[in-house]
Amino acid sequence: MSVIRNILNSRSSKGGNFFNILTQILGFKPKSILHYKKAFTHRSLNRRDEDGNAINFERMEFLGDAMLSAVVASHLFKAVPGGNEGYLTKMRSKVVSRKHLNELGKDLGLIEHVQTNIPKDQFGVNIHGNLFEALVGAIYLDRGYKHCKRFIYERVINPYVDIEQLEGKVISYKSLVIEWCQKEKKEFDFNVYEDTGNDELKHFAVKLRIGGRVVAKARATSKKKAEEKASKRAYYALQAKID
Amino acid sequence: MSVIRNILNSRSSKGGNFFNILTQILGFKPKSILHYKKAFTHRSLNRRDEDGNAINFERMEFLGDAMLSAVVASHLFKAVPGGNEGYLTKMRSKVVSRKHLNELGKDLGLIEHVQTNIPKDQFGVNIHGNLFEALVGAIYLDRGYKHCKRFIYERVINPYVDIEQLEGKVISYKSLVIEWCQKEKKEFDFNVYEDTGNDELKHFAVKLRIGGRVVAKARATSKKKAEEKASKRAYYALQAKID
Repeated sequence: MSVIRNILNSRSSKGGNFFNILTQILGFKPKSILHYKKAFTHRSLNRRDEDGNAINFERMEFLGDAMLSAVVASHLFKAVPGGNEGYLTKMRSKVVSRKHLNELGKDLGLIEHVQTNIPKDQFGVNIHGNLFEALVGAIYLDRGYKHCKRFIYERVINPYVDIEQLEGKVISYKSLVIEWCQKEKKEFDFNVYEDTGNDELKHFAVKLRIGGRVVAKARATSKKKAEEKASKRAYYALQAKID
Repeated sequence: MSVIRNILNSRSSKGGNFFNILTQILGFKPKSILHYKKAFTHRSLNRRDEDGNAINFERMEFLGDAMLSAVVASHLFKAVPGGNEGYLTKMRSKVVSRKHLNELGKDLGLIEHVQTNIPKDQFGVNIHGNLFEALVGAIYLDRGYKHCKRFIYERVINPYVDIEQLEGKVISYKSLVIEWCQKEKKEFDFNVYEDTGNDELKHFAVKLRIGGRVVAKARATSKKKAEEKASKRAYYALQAKID
């Protein structure tokens, strides 16, 4: 019990209350905080429960990975009615790729809240994706599939799953826009600035000017994503000209 | 629309009403029968919807596979609190192995209800598992995750997921029992007979006699499984002697 009490009472390295931090990250209030504590516990702490079972996020990655795969599978199945089994499998592996999960974990700043005995700069690059998977596993344990699905839609599918881009038809909207500007001999400028506002996460805003006129604005959790989002909007606005 | 009406009105090769057959296989009443019709439609029929998208069970295998993986992951996570990520991954791959899924599909007699243009004896051995996956996908689309999970528990986890057996600690309870009988010079006899009763599926019952006395009984959807089940019961009853 002392271990559990200890975990419950511990506060994040940021000094804020873990419950509040979690609520910000999740977008909803957790019911049982214990699952999330586990999801942020690194094996280096060597924590064990009364039966001697390890308490850390590694097992939860397995669960989170399974839930991500299921929710993304169901989304792609419905979103692309013409895609066959092979296509759906390929698209899913792009959405839940290690690279993509790392980006998601990084954007949410999950690493800031890890309890660990080793310095955080010694973690490999995959720590971000692993923590993201573990978080998804914790949500499933805490609130069940429906809530877990909603979280995955809000944090993964809605902001990042663009079928055309996944299919490789469009690799980067930014490069399409730049190409068009160069061809048309128009000056362009991505004006990026921090714009976190009341948001729980750091956000960036971008204004894309072409020929001196703002053609698109966007906001996202990284500079790159904000630029891409603005470019996509500009691309669709300019599409008649580009095609 | 004519295709849809055609599918809805079609009857299974067994002559029974598809809705009733489904209810028997599923253990509950389907809401939207269309998903199941798809799950039993082979590509050889070359059916397409109004948008030209293929109507057959292949896409649904992808969905069912994802749901099976998620539900089994969640079960193993909870059932084996001491198992690490690698262990859980290995155990899951045993539960959802091609061989096992083929057995499950075969036990449910799914192939009898497939709509196809090619003779059923030309299907490969994996048709059984593919149909089982597609059926799980159809359940998810029809009734959502909770119902899908319940079905997987009833048809996969409860009857077949034995952690000790999966771990390879016990390969076959039948062979353990036989070994013990030979060592103890006891006569044994597996008396197997068909015992379908009011069940939707063909069932077999077995009485295991050791030294002339019935030590265990069991019932299952195949002879092999009934024998194994009875052996497991006998094994636990005899365990004090075997150890």
